[in-house]
Amino acid sequence: MNQFDDCHCSREDTELSLQPERSPAEPRTAEEKQRIVNRLKRVEGQVRGLQKMVEDDRYCVDILIQLSAVQAALKKIGFSVLERHTKTCVSRAIEDGHGNDQVDELLKVLKLF
Amino acid sequence: MNQFDDCHCSREDTELSLQPERSPAEPRTAEEKQRIVNRLKRVEGQVRGLQKMVEDDRYCVDILIQLSAVQAALKKIGFSVLERHTKTCVSRAIEDGHGNDQVDELLKVLKLF
Amino acid sequence: MNQFDDCHCSREDTELSLQPERSPAEPRTAEEKQRIVNRLKRVEGQVRGLQKMVEDDRYCVDILIQLSAVQAALKKIGFSVLERHTKTCVSRAIEDGHGNDQVDELLKVLKLF
Amino acid sequence: MNQFDDCHCSREDTELSLQPERSPAEPRTAEEKQRIVNRLKRVEGQVRGLQKMVEDDRYCVDILIQLSAVQAALKKIGFSVLERHTKTCVSRAIEDGHGNDQVDELLKVLKLF
Repeated sequence: MNQFDDCHCSREDTELSLQPERSPAEPRTAEEKQRIVNRLKRVEGQVRGLQKMVEDDRYCVDILIQLSAVQAALKKIGFSVLERHTKTCVSRAIEDGHGNDQVDELLKVLKLF
Repeated sequence: MNQFDDCHCSREDTELSLQPERSPAEPRTAEEKQRIVNRLKRVEGQVRGLQKMVEDDRYCVDILIQLSAVQAALKKIGFSVLERHTKTCVSRAIEDGHGNDQVDELLKVLKLF
Repeated sequence: MNQFDDCHCSREDTELSLQPERSPAEPRTAEEKQRIVNRLKRVEGQVRGLQKMVEDDRYCVDILIQLSAVQAALKKIGFSVLERHTKTCVSRAIEDGHGNDQVDELLKVLKLF
Repeated sequence: MNQFDDCHCSREDTELSLQPERSPAEPRTAEEKQRIVNRLKRVEGQVRGLQKMVEDDRYCVDILIQLSAVQAALKKIGFSVLERHTKTCVSRAIEDGHGNDQVDELLKVLKLF
């Protein structure tokens, strides 16, 4: 038997909990932070726009189109965070010889989406 | 050949555009509107929370967990809007004998998610 | 309170079970059946192709690319079945005045995907 | 600017093509291969079962329930392949100092699903 026999990913339970005491392996630069915060502020504005559409009793399909646009924007932000995480936290752990735990965590995160 | 031979859904182009002049077949009650707006306000708050997490340089996986929670909340709101749309706009059109256009539109909306 | 207050779709449990005794509101023509069966036969062939790739120890990403192609083909078949179901079974039930149960069932099906 | 400024993942084009000449960093054991092939054979059987359901003109929702079960089985197989890929090919590349290309490829694969 090797390490893939007890295939972590086949278990459906994702049991991921927040780890507030933990930080990225490589701190984000002010510039990186601002880029993601700006994208999240645009999403915030889109969500307020959705509220206005509901108050104006807009056609349901229009609301669903805008809602899917918010989902798409969040998905892209998620991929940016995921890419950086894999290229820093996960890679650093692999370089330090304890990558499998990080990869298990990465796969659990993927199952959330 | 019958109406399913030119199967609309096999075409990948969703070409859905906003129809601001259009309203729901049955106007939403004030109560209905408030319920959806409240849920969207909670999402707005969660998105601001994500901005704070980025500013605090929180661990990437924590940000992704919260981001997936926002996605899940938006998905539920989408299902509420979809259910109401199907039980009012689509059903009314079917009762009036021109349901297929509405069903085609419904399937295009589903492809957005 | 109206019928959307107890919003069926917000419950996460899909509790959909098979109903072997039930048939489509409108029987499928031999031609319709053949079209879907042919598409499923192509999927069957693709799945055998995946088995061969694994036996040949092909690069993981190639296997994942082919696996996503099978997923895409199944999704399209699903949309065809969904479109027909909505234009026949669901529409017939709406015309007969008991559409809401069918719409609830339709939304549960959507949650499976 | 650092390596995340030209954020690969924000580009929607996945442009992933098959690389038949490439093999896994670590060859799969016969046992590993058999396990995945067995799972794919079960999927093959399920797809044949779907063909039978269509030929028997089974209720649309039943077909959709079974189709979603095939999707779920394929998704789990995909996660197994993805886990192994990340713990071998991607990790090996990171250890050898050229991990970013592999991570970019990994993110492109994720976008297929």
